Amino acid sequence: MNEAALTLEGWYALHDFRSIDWSAWKAADDEERAGALEDLHQFLQEWTDIELSKKGSTAVYSIVGQKADILFMHLRETLEELNALENAFNKTTFAQYTTKAYSYVSIVELSNYLASGDGDPKANPEIRARLEPILPKSNHICFYPMNKKRDLNDNWYMLSMEERKGMMRSHGMIGRSYAGKVKQIITGSVGLDDWEWGVTLFADDALQFKKLVYEMRFDEVSARFGEFGSFYVGNLLNESLLEQMLKL
Amino acid sequence: MNEAALTLEGWYALHDFRSIDWSAWKAADDEERAGALEDLHQFLQEWTDIELSKKGSTAVYSIVGQKADILFMHLRETLEELNALENAFNKTTFAQYTTKAYSYVSIVELSNYLASGDGDPKANPEIRARLEPILPKSNHICFYPMNKKRDLNDNWYMLSMEERKGMMRSHGMIGRSYAGKVKQIITGSVGLDDWEWGVTLFADDALQFKKLVYEMRFDEVSARFGEFGSFYVGNLLNESLLEQMLKL
Amino acid sequence: MNEAALTLEGWYALHDFRSIDWSAWKAADDEERAGALEDLHQFLQEWTDIELSKKGSTAVYSIVGQKADILFMHLRETLEELNALENAFNKTTFAQYTTKAYSYVSIVELSNYLASGDGDPKANPEIRARLEPILPKSNHICFYPMNKKRDLNDNWYMLSMEERKGMMRSHGMIGRSYAGKVKQIITGSVGLDDWEWGVTLFADDALQFKKLVYEMRFDEVSARFGEFGSFYVGNLLNESLLEQMLKL
Amino acid sequence: MNEAALTLEGWYALHDFRSIDWSAWKAADDEERAGALEDLHQFLQEWTDIELSKKGSTAVYSIVGQKADILFMHLRETLEELNALENAFNKTTFAQYTTKAYSYVSIVELSNYLASGDGDPKANPEIRARLEPILPKSNHICFYPMNKKRDLNDNWYMLSMEERKGMMRSHGMIGRSYAGKVKQIITGSVGLDDWEWGVTLFADDALQFKKLVYEMRFDEVSARFGEFGSFYVGNLLNESLLEQMLKL
Amino acid sequence: MNEAALTLEGWYALHDFRSIDWSAWKAADDEERAGALEDLHQFLQEWTDIELSKKGSTAVYSIVGQKADILFMHLRETLEELNALENAFNKTTFAQYTTKAYSYVSIVELSNYLASGDGDPKANPEIRARLEPILPKSNHICFYPMNKKRDLNDNWYMLSMEERKGMMRSHGMIGRSYAGKVKQIITGSVGLDDWEWGVTLFADDALQFKKLVYEMRFDEVSARFGEFGSFYVGNLLNESLLEQMLKL
Repeated sequence: MNEAALTLEGWYALHDFRSIDWSAWKAADDEERAGALEDLHQFLQEWTDIELSKKGSTAVYSIVGQKADILFMHLRETLEELNALENAFNKTTFAQYTTKAYSYVSIVELSNYLASGDGDPKANPEIRARLEPILPKSNHICFYPMNKKRDLNDNWYMLSMEERKGMMRSHGMIGRSYAGKVKQIITGSVGLDDWEWGVTLFADDALQFKKLVYEMRFDEVSARFGEFGSFYVGNLLNESLLEQMLKL
Repeated sequence: MNEAALTLEGWYALHDFRSIDWSAWKAADDEERAGALEDLHQFLQEWTDIELSKKGSTAVYSIVGQKADILFMHLRETLEELNALENAFNKTTFAQYTTKAYSYVSIVELSNYLASGDGDPKANPEIRARLEPILPKSNHICFYPMNKKRDLNDNWYMLSMEERKGMMRSHGMIGRSYAGKVKQIITGSVGLDDWEWGVTLFADDALQFKKLVYEMRFDEVSARFGEFGSFYVGNLLNESLLEQMLKL
Repeated sequence: MNEAALTLEGWYALHDFRSIDWSAWKAADDEERAGALEDLHQFLQEWTDIELSKKGSTAVYSIVGQKADILFMHLRETLEELNALENAFNKTTFAQYTTKAYSYVSIVELSNYLASGDGDPKANPEIRARLEPILPKSNHICFYPMNKKRDLNDNWYMLSMEERKGMMRSHGMIGRSYAGKVKQIITGSVGLDDWEWGVTLFADDALQFKKLVYEMRFDEVSARFGEFGSFYVGNLLNESLLEQMLKL
Repeated sequence: MNEAALTLEGWYALHDFRSIDWSAWKAADDEERAGALEDLHQFLQEWTDIELSKKGSTAVYSIVGQKADILFMHLRETLEELNALENAFNKTTFAQYTTKAYSYVSIVELSNYLASGDGDPKANPEIRARLEPILPKSNHICFYPMNKKRDLNDNWYMLSMEERKGMMRSHGMIGRSYAGKVKQIITGSVGLDDWEWGVTLFADDALQFKKLVYEMRFDEVSARFGEFGSFYVGNLLNESLLEQMLKL
Repeated sequence: MNEAALTLEGWYALHDFRSIDWSAWKAADDEERAGALEDLHQFLQEWTDIELSKKGSTAVYSIVGQKADILFMHLRETLEELNALENAFNKTTFAQYTTKAYSYVSIVELSNYLASGDGDPKANPEIRARLEPILPKSNHICFYPMNKKRDLNDNWYMLSMEERKGMMRSHGMIGRSYAGKVKQIITGSVGLDDWEWGVTLFADDALQFKKLVYEMRFDEVSARFGEFGSFYVGNLLNESLLEQMLKL
C-alpha cells in the first residue's frame, strides 16, 4: 500500500517570520511611517478579502522574544500565490523596515493513519474544511517544525504500518483531550522544506501549549521518534494592535 | 496519570540578553547618551514599581564575555505583558545602542515530582511565592537552557514515573545541600522555546554555580539524561552600576 | 570491482541560489534598474544560445520562502565554464542587487547500480542525453543535497555491492512509478561539495515532490541510510515572469 | 564523597579573542591610530602592573588564520574584575577597530583526581602558585574548550571514581612527559561557559602542541570520552610586536 | 610506542579562503583598482621568489560556488611566517575588496603508518621533498578537513596499532592507484585547528577528485572512521587568469 497515496493535502502554507528594524523605523519620518502603515493596512484588507472569498486564509501574530517580531501565516491554493504574495510584500515600503527571521513552506495535510477509506474524502465537506481551513483568531499561536527520527533502533520509517497506526492513535487521543482548548493544524513539508512537518497550534490560553506538548512528549511516538526544531510563540495581532505595536 | 496536570505554573519569564553597540554609543553626543540613560532610568523605575506591587519581577545583570553585555530577566503574569515590555524597550533611544544577543521564553514551574497531592497547591502561600517569585538581588546570576535526552537507551521520556521520581529526588537533595548558597528558579519552556527548561541560578559567590552544576553532573539524571545549551554568567547591576558601566 | 569506475559522469552543475536585496533595488533609480534588467536579459539570451548549441543548459526558478529568491541552475562541460559564468554574473549590475544564499557544485551522474556492462555506455545516445540533459521547463523545481549514512550499524558503505544493488533497485522502482509526473536529475558531489549527492526534481504539480519523497522515505535505502540537507522549492521563471517579479 | 568539593579553584579566566577591522584601521587617520595605540599601550602597562603585584596575569598572543587576530587572556581574582576589564577595553578607541571573535569564561582548577587529601591544600605555596599562575611568555599558545562525553556507553559521568582516577593518572603521565616543552593550564567552566573545561597550552615550539594532543588522543580518557571545541593557535605578542603587527 | 613520535612534520600550512566584495570592487575607481592589482602582483612575485629559494610554496586557485572566490594556500617554515604573511596581506589595498571565507592551519605530515624505522628519515631527500613540497600547478585543487571518528564502536583511537596499520595500508593502495592523476598533500592539524587533518588534492582532471574520494569511501578506514568537513574545489589561477577574473 502506497503510504503517500493515503495522505490528503489541502492549501499550501507559508509561515513568514519577520523582525522589525527598530532603528530604521525610528529614523524614518512621519510621512514614511504613515506610508508604510498604509501598505500594511492594504495588505491586511486584501488578505481579509481572500479569506472571505474562501480562497485562502492569513493569520498575523506578534512573536515573543528576539527570534522574530511578527509572523504572517498564509494559506493559499498554490505555491505561485504564496510566492507572489511574498514578492509583493517585499516590494512594500513597510517591508523595508523589517528583516527576514525565518520562514517555512508546507501544505495542509490530513494523516493517512486516520483514513476511513470509503469514498472520495475530498467530497466530504468536513474534511474539505480541515484541508482548507480558515485560521482561528485565538489569542495565541505556537509554531514548530518536526521530524520522525531515523536513528538506529529508533527508526519510525522502518516500523510496520500497524505499529505506526497504533502509536498515532494514542497520540491523537491526547490531542483530542485538548479539544476546545487547543486547535492544531498539521502541515506536511517533506520535499518542500527542511523538516517533515510543521505544527501550528492556536489557543486562548498559552499555557495549554506547554501542557499539550509536554504531555505528548511522554507518548512513545514523540518520546522515541519525535525530533523538534525551534518553537515560536506569540500573541494575536489585529490591525489596531499592530498599529499600537508600531506606534512610537 | 496525566504528567502535565501535575506541574504547577506561575509567572511567564523573558530572559532578554543584549549587547551594547559600543561604537554607536561612543559616536553619540552627550545629549543623546543622556536621553538614552533617562529612558533606561524610567524603565528601571517602572520595573521596580511593578515588583513592589507584586505584579512581576525584573533582575538586571551584566554578562561576562562576548556573548552579551546585559541580561534583563523579566517575570510577568502574561505573554502579552512580556511582549509589550520588549516592544516598549525596542522603541527607546537606549535600545538603539544595543543589539540582540539571545532570548528565552518560559514560565516558572514547580515539578510534578515533588507534588504532595493534597488540596489546591496554589492556595498554599509558600507555593504561590515560589510560582510568582521576587527575583533575588544576589551578586551573580547563571542561566542555561536544558533538555532531558531522548537518545536510544538514554530516553528520559520512556522511563516510568517511579524511575523518574527516584532520580529527581536524589537530584533535589544535591540542590538542597546548596541552600543558602545558591537559589534556583526553574522555568518550563516545552511548547514555548527551543529547550525544555531554563535554569536560572543566583549566588553571592559565583564559584558555587560551578560546584553545584559539576556535582549534579555525576547524578544519573544529569549524567545520562541532561542535555545543556549555552551558559551565561554575570554580575548584579543596579542603577548606579549600570551608569558606571555605560559611562565613557 | 572498482566502485567509482562504474559510475558515469556528464556535465558539471552549479546551483546558484540568490536573494534579492529589495531595499537596494527600491533605492535604485529607473535607469539603474533598467541597466540591471538589461544585464539579466543578455545573460538569459546567452544561456539560451548555449542550450541551443547543446553545450550546456540553464534553468531559472524563483524560490518560495526566505531561503532565497532565485535559483540559477547551470550545467556546463567544465568547472572552468561554471566559474567563468559565476564571475561574469558577479560583475553585472544586476548582481549588485542580490546577495548569496546558497550554492552547490556537482556533476551529472548515472549510478553504477544500473549499469548493464556491455559496450561503451557513453556511445549510447540515450545515456548521453541523460548525462548531458537539457533541463526541463516544468512549473516547479525541488532541490536537496543528501548523503548515505555511515552511523554504526546503519553504514551504507559497509554493505556489500549485492545488498546495495537490491535496495537501489527497489528505490528506482518508486522513482519510475512517478514517470511523467516527476523528472529527476541526480548529480554526484563527493569530492566537489559538502554532501555526496544533489537531487533536482522537476514537476508541473509541486505536490508530486511531497508524494515522491515521502513514499521513498519508507524505502529502506532512505529510511535507514538517507541523510538530507535543506530543501528548496520554487516556481519556473521565464524572462517575462522574472521581469514581473522585479517590477516595482 | 562530594566530587565538587575535591576540586580546587583559583583565579577566574577570560579568554578574549578579537579580530582587527583592517578596513576601519586603514581608513583612520594617523592621529586616530596613534590614539588607539596609546590606549593599547596604557592597558598593556596596567596589566603588567597587576601581574607584578600578583593580583592577576595577562597574556597577549596573535592568532593564526581567520578565526581571530589577537587573544587577550586575563586571569583575575573575581568575575567583577574581568567584567570591568572587558568594559574598559570596549570603551577604548582601539576597541573600535576590533570585532568580537570568541570568548571563554572559566576558572583555574586543580583536579580532584590528583588530591592527596592532607591538610589545607591552599596553604601549600606550590599549589597556590598553580591556582594563581603568572602566565608564561612562551613563543606560542594553543587554546581549546572540551567536554567529557555522556554518550550511551561512553559516559564519563557514569563511571566510578576509581575508573576515572585510573584513566586520569595515565593521562597525566603523558602530560608530564612533555614537561619543559609544554606548559598546560586547565580552567574549569562547568556552570560558567558552554564547555566543561578550557585547556590553554604554552610552548616555545608549536609542533609540541600537535605531538601532545595527538599522543593523548589515543589515551582512553580522550579517545572514548574527549569532546573538543575549536582550536586556536598563535604567536606571542609583546608591545613592540603588537605595534609592528598594527603598523601600516 | 609513542604514536606522535612516529609522525614526521614539515612545513606549516595556511589555507586562506577569501571572497571578493564585488560591489566594493565595482564601486572603486580605476586608480584604486590598479593599486589593488599592483599589491596583488607584488605578493605573487614575492611568493614566487620564496618558492624559488625553497623557503616555502604558495598556490593560488579560484573556488567554484559561493563558499569563496580565491584560495591562497601557503606553506612556510614557521607559524610566525604564516602570521606575518596574513597580516601583510590584510594591510594591502586589495584585501579591502575581499572578505574572510574560511581558513585552515595545519602542518605537512607523513604518517607513522608508513614508517620504515631505519635511520633519520629527515636525512632522506625524498622524504624531505614530501615534507617541504613545492605545490603542483595542476588545473584543479580540492581541499577538505577530516577527523577519524570516535563514536561508540566506531572509535579509531581505540583500535590497536596493528588494526590501524592494516586499514591504512589498503587505503594507501587506493591512493597509489591514482598516481599520475591525483597528487595528495596531507597536513596534520591536531592541536592547530578544528579537524585532525587537512587533505589537499591536485589534479588536471577534476573528475578524478570525485573518483578517488568516492572509491575511498567504501574502504573501511573511511566508511567506518572518516568524518568530513566542507569540500572546496577550484581552478588554477596564475597572474593573468587572476587579472582576467578581476577585470570589469
